[in-house]
Amino acid sequence: MKDGKMMLETKTMRSRMEYMIKRTQQQICDAIEKLDHVPFQEDIWSHAEGGGGISRVLQNGTIFEKAGVNISIIQGMMSKEMACATRLNKEETEDRSPPFFAAGISVVIHPHNPMVPTAHTNYRYFEVGDAYAPHTWWFGGGADLTPAYLFTEDAIHFHQTHKDVCDHFDLSFYPQFKQQCDNYFYIVHRKERRGIGGIFFEHLNNHSSEDLFAFVSSCAQAFVPAYFPIVQQRFSLPFTESQKRWQQIRRGRYVEFNLVYDRGTAFGFHSGGRTESILMSLPLLARWEYDYQPPYGSPEAQMVEILRTPHEWV
Amino acid sequence: MKDGKMMLETKTMRSRMEYMIKRTQQQICDAIEKLDHVPFQEDIWSHAEGGGGISRVLQNGTIFEKAGVNISIIQGMMSKEMACATRLNKEETEDRSPPFFAAGISVVIHPHNPMVPTAHTNYRYFEVGDAYAPHTWWFGGGADLTPAYLFTEDAIHFHQTHKDVCDHFDLSFYPQFKQQCDNYFYIVHRKERRGIGGIFFEHLNNHSSEDLFAFVSSCAQAFVPAYFPIVQQRFSLPFTESQKRWQQIRRGRYVEFNLVYDRGTAFGFHSGGRTESILMSLPLLARWEYDYQPPYGSPEAQMVEILRTPHEWV
Repeated sequence: MKDGKMMLETKTMRSRMEYMIKRTQQQICDAIEKLDHVPFQEDIWSHAEGGGGISRVLQNGTIFEKAGVNISIIQGMMSKEMACATRLNKEETEDRSPPFFAAGISVVIHPHNPMVPTAHTNYRYFEVGDAYAPHTWWFGGGADLTPAYLFTEDAIHFHQTHKDVCDHFDLSFYPQFKQQCDNYFYIVHRKERRGIGGIFFEHLNNHSSEDLFAFVSSCAQAFVPAYFPIVQQRFSLPFTESQKRWQQIRRGRYVEFNLVYDRGTAFGFHSGGRTESILMSLPLLARWEYDYQPPYGSPEAQMVEILRTPHEWV
Repeated sequence: MKDGKMMLETKTMRSRMEYMIKRTQQQICDAIEKLDHVPFQEDIWSHAEGGGGISRVLQNGTIFEKAGVNISIIQGMMSKEMACATRLNKEETEDRSPPFFAAGISVVIHPHNPMVPTAHTNYRYFEVGDAYAPHTWWFGGGADLTPAYLFTEDAIHFHQTHKDVCDHFDLSFYPQFKQQCDNYFYIVHRKERRGIGGIFFEHLNNHSSEDLFAFVSSCAQAFVPAYFPIVQQRFSLPFTESQKRWQQIRRGRYVEFNLVYDRGTAFGFHSGGRTESILMSLPLLARWEYDYQPPYGSPEAQMVEILRTPHEWV
């Protein structure tokens, strides 16, 4: 009986997801530390209603201005605002504040050199109801790249690596998730996207949870090979003060997206997450110059063009 | 008949408000230009459904890092999001998209020197329905101060100047509007206010529109004497790199408030306002250091203490 209970426990999707995100956190931190010799600061926090998180943030590194690799495993009773931030259907919240469980990893990396893109990845598992017979569950997540200057081969490499993972599982996934990524990271008031995309999915439960867990685990594994070769290729390129300034302007847009539109940030605030862990996604420095317009035909203007009209990279 | 029509037109609250905000814009720009010799950039824009605005922004001045003095006079049909951003009651939006009119001035001044506080003021008149017999109308606005370092006498001067205007009109106004200001500029996820407050009111229509127009005009007149003596007193004080860094961290909080909570910013986006004019409120540079905590007992920590527990200045 005891063994039976134990086996059952290790088999819940909750605990398998928890194991997976912890392993991924370690892998990504290892990849960062291999390049940058500044150590991570680790903070372990508890969530008021249950669970908590482990935040690892590196700041003022030699290559990375700021890099956050956070996991959180939280549970509690769902508020109206949280239901809104997770876009739950009415039927799913008939019980006005049902119990929920959410486990996820969230990574944002802002390098110093404006030739190296900012990268983000996030994978999460969400459940409403009981752990052994959840009423509703889904996976969500994705990965996307935000360059200040475009290197076409970097965009192709990042997309191709994620497409390979998607294609291995379901050929409809990449075109669908690529499109969803372009839609999600749209900064309405700027009429441009945050970056050059990648993949993004939400409420994914159209296959068995077994299969989708395998898919999401492969996606999480793909981040290191998708991003770090780009960092190695670009981090020692020369750059000017004016290129750094452009990077800071782009980081202002990053802040605008995250604070105005990002549902992950909203969910974090509404679910009682730790503010410093949620806002590790913000860059060290962001700049707002009034009505800055890059010169016609410049690399900066070309970058904006791509953000206005998404490209098919692969 | 023609004269009668003209008189009627010049007497609508819409046109009087328009005249008042234009005059105030000129006065505040004059006060800024008297101190800073960098000229304002002026942009005139049109609103898709009617009206438009005049934005004046000064950047990289000798004293001011960024100063925006904007007016806008817009009209159109009210969307659900706008009704939400202006907190209209259901009865007021029974007509699903009633015509609206909004005229306002919005000022944000971010000085270079961290010893000089950032200041904001905003006054607006809002109408739903017909210009000669509006279904609903109100005035809104206020003024507040955001120091990085606290000089008690500056806080007293700013509050006292506004209290004098309020008291002259209605003794209940200052205590009420001071409290509303502390409530409005609360950054929930930081458990602190954006600054040391001032006055703030919304949906003000509990006196005649004549009387309230006189009140709001006096408030608008009070900004120059409330703020600029502080600038003159502090702008040449010496400061260190580390104090500048603290100012940038505080400006990060300013960005957080404006993008996450400010209903003016939300209203601007939803009503089809000009993005660059709305976001002139953001500082030139903002900084997010992970989990930065000012040393115990330092002036920075004392500043945060005041932002956590609002003070009665007068």
